[in-house]
Amino acid sequence: MGTTVSTLTPGTRSRKAIYYGTFIHSRTITNLDIITQGAIGVDDSGKIAFVERNVESPEKLFLNFPEWVGVRVFQTPKDGFFFPGLIDTHIHASQYPNAGLFGSTTLLDWLTTYTFPTESSFSDLTFAGTVYNRIVNRTLSHGTTTASYYTTIHVPATNLLSEICHKKGQRAFIGRVCMDVNCPDYYGDESVSMAMANTKDTIEYIKSIDPDYRVVSPIVTPRFAVTCSGDMMSELGKLAKQENIPIQTHVSENEYEIDFVNKSFPKSGSYTNVYDDHGLLTPRTILSHAVHLSEEELKLIKSRRTGLSHCPVSNSALGSGVARVRDWVDEGVNVGLGTDVSGGYSPSILEAARQALLVSRILAQREGVERYKLSIAEVLWFATRGGARVVGLEGKVGGFEVGMEWDAVLVGLGGVDGAGEGVLDSEGEEVVVGDEQGLTIGGVDLFGWQGDWEDRVAKWVYAGDERNNLGVWVGGRLVYEKERQGVERLVRRNGLYN
Amino acid sequence: MGTTVSTLTPGTRSRKAIYYGTFIHSRTITNLDIITQGAIGVDDSGKIAFVERNVESPEKLFLNFPEWVGVRVFQTPKDGFFFPGLIDTHIHASQYPNAGLFGSTTLLDWLTTYTFPTESSFSDLTFAGTVYNRIVNRTLSHGTTTASYYTTIHVPATNLLSEICHKKGQRAFIGRVCMDVNCPDYYGDESVSMAMANTKDTIEYIKSIDPDYRVVSPIVTPRFAVTCSGDMMSELGKLAKQENIPIQTHVSENEYEIDFVNKSFPKSGSYTNVYDDHGLLTPRTILSHAVHLSEEELKLIKSRRTGLSHCPVSNSALGSGVARVRDWVDEGVNVGLGTDVSGGYSPSILEAARQALLVSRILAQREGVERYKLSIAEVLWFATRGGARVVGLEGKVGGFEVGMEWDAVLVGLGGVDGAGEGVLDSEGEEVVVGDEQGLTIGGVDLFGWQGDWEDRVAKWVYAGDERNNLGVWVGGRLVYEKERQGVERLVRRNGLYN
Repeated sequence: MGTTVSTLTPGTRSRKAIYYGTFIHSRTITNLDIITQGAIGVDDSGKIAFVERNVESPEKLFLNFPEWVGVRVFQTPKDGFFFPGLIDTHIHASQYPNAGLFGSTTLLDWLTTYTFPTESSFSDLTFAGTVYNRIVNRTLSHGTTTASYYTTIHVPATNLLSEICHKKGQRAFIGRVCMDVNCPDYYGDESVSMAMANTKDTIEYIKSIDPDYRVVSPIVTPRFAVTCSGDMMSELGKLAKQENIPIQTHVSENEYEIDFVNKSFPKSGSYTNVYDDHGLLTPRTILSHAVHLSEEELKLIKSRRTGLSHCPVSNSALGSGVARVRDWVDEGVNVGLGTDVSGGYSPSILEAARQALLVSRILAQREGVERYKLSIAEVLWFATRGGARVVGLEGKVGGFEVGMEWDAVLVGLGGVDGAGEGVLDSEGEEVVVGDEQGLTIGGVDLFGWQGDWEDRVAKWVYAGDERNNLGVWVGGRLVYEKERQGVERLVRRNGLYN
Repeated sequence: MGTTVSTLTPGTRSRKAIYYGTFIHSRTITNLDIITQGAIGVDDSGKIAFVERNVESPEKLFLNFPEWVGVRVFQTPKDGFFFPGLIDTHIHASQYPNAGLFGSTTLLDWLTTYTFPTESSFSDLTFAGTVYNRIVNRTLSHGTTTASYYTTIHVPATNLLSEICHKKGQRAFIGRVCMDVNCPDYYGDESVSMAMANTKDTIEYIKSIDPDYRVVSPIVTPRFAVTCSGDMMSELGKLAKQENIPIQTHVSENEYEIDFVNKSFPKSGSYTNVYDDHGLLTPRTILSHAVHLSEEELKLIKSRRTGLSHCPVSNSALGSGVARVRDWVDEGVNVGLGTDVSGGYSPSILEAARQALLVSRILAQREGVERYKLSIAEVLWFATRGGARVVGLEGKVGGFEVGMEWDAVLVGLGGVDGAGEGVLDSEGEEVVVGDEQGLTIGGVDLFGWQGDWEDRVAKWVYAGDERNNLGVWVGGRLVYEKERQGVERLVRRNGLYN
């Protein structure tokens, strides 16, 4: 805790800066664009003003951009690259204390055993503050620049998460959970009217701190059709329309859940139709999981231009099954990734991307269908541009293009130097010391002869983690750095810049 | 690189010490034994001399063990515990540079595209030294105290790995890869006699540095039936018997591979039978993968008391399928875990344990068979006692019992302190600093109210990594510590000890 003194400290209100070096982002769903001598100018408001390629040096750049002379230039370190900030389309901030705890449960017993008791504790604001500060710090460290959060039913704690995201600068959708039927005695909305009033309070609060929803936005959040009355869902659908805000909920995660929903809403004909029948299936709706969708449901989702959040870590951990993401893509549905903390045990979208690759290979083998395999380019698309579409921020975040926000992660990869012998103790025995031999600063080992950027990206996806994130920016503001002033050390020092 | 000066430095040749605090190890395959006030005495030779429970303090202990007064006492930190060293029953040391690189290949094209070219480079000893030092450092950091390694066909490089493991103190089985048919032009054994002579050279080398196979042992390693002639396999079977050393190979990993083997050895009737027909299926044989075993093959493996190495990370990454581990356990076959670097992208057995849990849940859902789910206790058994049986070290390593070797990992888990606010910059904006806020020292967040050891173990299994390993011992020798003198700081300082 403390304040820094340099007037050059990143995070100051003018976002104007030039980023120089290697940039990697999705060009299309199957292609990564790798720019090795690039320069991106970010303006005062944190938006990308130019993207230049084949820039031999920043000095050459200034011949064409004389008005940028004097602006700070951040240069990627060796083997480092800028990547668009990662987008978590589905995360329960309130469940973070339970990460890793689920035993052998599946969705419905997991909710009653672990989730509802923990969520009910968010009536305590101190508790909420500890958990929410920690999960936002954690997701920022993992490079999540945009997150679509579920909170709990509690208004003050939900408002606290809005405030924390706003203060820390993480782009966030904040959804107070609505649930009015099939809830435990101790946790749930007392009535539809109370659910609506409380939800509106959280929307008003966000308007009070961020009127234009520049960083933090409300999102209408009926938990899922199991715990929502038809009346409440209809009211929530109207509210979303009236307020022009997005919607998030769960769909078709688990077979028992689907059965329960079908029995509760026999006239709808399918789980997805339940939401459609209550005005919740919109182009601004995020449906998470969707493991067991029928073809008809997928077509309905496509026709409503609703986005899907793929949560492979959670789906495996809770034994929900393997989602058929290739079918979603082929149908033309927008796909993003979700950590689904704490059904998912990891707050990392990179982990979600990795496990999306793995489960797609399990599915391809099981079905004997090669095309079910997802590629690294595809899962990185889901993590960035795909996710941006799902949360309604297409064209604003997810890539490096003029006019987009500078939401970015600086990824550093480690080289392996020398013979790797350990430290010798007093009797000449070797002890390997993790911190001194680069074993605890990250899991990616690049050997000297490995120069191909595609291979480096693959190694990052499979062996990388938050230790590789040297800096994270949202809207041009530095919101996370691995070490104090670590990003400042990337500023090129020469006569042209101050 | 350097030497330390303290005469108290761990790693000195006398291993005599007392470890005090919390110990967790497998009692049975379904039960973890959690000892919260325990004391383990390790004698000069690195073996466990006593295991005491309910020891209120080391001082009380000395009333019953007066001859141990003056011996150093290492005490677990808050939330820390000793766990048996992890056992990697299947890892290709030579493939480590390719970790994370496989694209969308499956086994056979992956071998020709990535693996054989890399393995052929081990004719260069400098290259070999860089890779082998690094992978041993890495696996030690992940708490692997015993590893069963495949190298390449090269004798000098194989001997170098033996030397490195011996010097660093990692218990290792070192297997020079034998492959004499269906190999690329540039990489393979020229003849059966050359394969045998070269293999014998690597055995002799190990005898020269570690005559009793105390730390390093040879292991006969026919790559797999695809690249081995019947003659060579028979000779290797005889060699293993004659030398009384173990055997390792692959079985039934991929459907194309199985088909290839069945066509190459039509008289055998099954992939497993091929090994049995050539004298390779013994109680000291490690078969890895075994994804698509038939019931008959499993029964044959059981009858030969051969062990199986489950490699879930690799099986998912290469799209090999999901192994039916529950069936193996029910059949009474010994099961260990393998990282299978670099079919597996991670050198961590903890990651293999985690993914064993995940794929068992995918299998359970797909087949509708609840009992296919593995528990945390089970995968930790595989990682320790199960693995010990598979590599032929039952009763010697894998648990905390009198007479066993002190092969152990000290696991530290991190608490979440305070409200988690970030550092403020000069304009009062918050920047989250990873290193200062405990975000880069490990992924496990324990909130203050979480005191249950079973929950802590679950969080370690799901969110832990090498950053949680504060120290690693093999045979009482400290072989890894996270920070220099970090383990030394655990020594209790008071009048009773020096």
